[in-house]
Amino acid sequence: MKIFEEKIAPNARRVRMFLAEKGVENVEFVQLDLKRGDNVSAEFKQKNPLAKVPVMEMDDGSYLSESVAICRYFEAEKPQPALMGQTPMQQANIEMWQRRSEIYFMNLIGMGFQHCSGYFADRMTPVPEWGQECVKEAAKFMPILNDHLAKNEFIGGEEFSIADITAFVSIDFARVIKLRMGEEFTHLKRWYDLVNSRASARV
Amino acid sequence: MKIFEEKIAPNARRVRMFLAEKGVENVEFVQLDLKRGDNVSAEFKQKNPLAKVPVMEMDDGSYLSESVAICRYFEAEKPQPALMGQTPMQQANIEMWQRRSEIYFMNLIGMGFQHCSGYFADRMTPVPEWGQECVKEAAKFMPILNDHLAKNEFIGGEEFSIADITAFVSIDFARVIKLRMGEEFTHLKRWYDLVNSRASARV
Repeated sequence: MKIFEEKIAPNARRVRMFLAEKGVENVEFVQLDLKRGDNVSAEFKQKNPLAKVPVMEMDDGSYLSESVAICRYFEAEKPQPALMGQTPMQQANIEMWQRRSEIYFMNLIGMGFQHCSGYFADRMTPVPEWGQECVKEAAKFMPILNDHLAKNEFIGGEEFSIADITAFVSIDFARVIKLRMGEEFTHLKRWYDLVNSRASARV
Repeated sequence: MKIFEEKIAPNARRVRMFLAEKGVENVEFVQLDLKRGDNVSAEFKQKNPLAKVPVMEMDDGSYLSESVAICRYFEAEKPQPALMGQTPMQQANIEMWQRRSEIYFMNLIGMGFQHCSGYFADRMTPVPEWGQECVKEAAKFMPILNDHLAKNEFIGGEEFSIADITAFVSIDFARVIKLRMGEEFTHLKRWYDLVNSRASARV
């Protein structure tokens, strides 16, 4: 199996972190240069018509994209350690927090960056006013996460999960919009340090 | 169990459709008025700090939000009929298409509507220029889906799945931004009629 990615992209990092936690090692990583437009070429769109990374090439030559779909494949293929929950309620709770961390945090950070910086202005229309709204909205997720982590060891409950990966990667990525954890968020900081101490945070 | 929703909201519809396909009947539905702001009250934020619907109240008094997380709960609790795939590759492929249908279609339609119409201007800052971009981008997903459906009976492959639900609900919802299936999308139309003939399309 082969994953096409760009190492600094947050969606690529969450797949690498997920695979490191699972102990999956038989995947080759191929680096693209997104700024140069490697992902918007006609050739790459054969792999993913949405022109996004990461994309995984399976051993049968088919392609799988969307980072969470790649994670889902490995969760089903190699269930232990479980990173998406085991009981119905665990699965649902982790899905809820993984989505919250993505929709109300990671995606807003990404749009804030792209619309304020014009980084991909060759392939999209940046709307700076929208970018600034995204930055403001993303900041509102930190106190929600902090409150939640006052009562929970990890985001999905007692066990480390994909929800931690999405939120952790997003907090690091938030530097691109100059959003950092305020010192008042002591529970968030406790959790961040805990996740940051895992070997998977280094991949 | 009890679900707080607003019947016309597309995320609420996809949960109802999912439950109808599963044959789950022991859920009570409670209607909120989002325009009036029922979901942004302090009381509702105790149920979901992100102030979104649908929210499910479990029998133990805990709350589960995010429509796909609610679906995930029922998929795990009542596996048949499977709507999120069975083999690792089916699960991953359905996750990929459910996410594509959501991220590059449903969410763009929702933002296009909110930012162009100012429908929720009392609680967000509409940016019409961004809304217009979303409308343009959402339209680009229809040919991608049409090409995919030329080779697949359903979006996730041979079986009906949550990916069909998300895309179907989104196509109906796209009326709010005056986006309709062009006649050239014959495969999309074939699939739309097939899904529209299911009893779950009426709930």
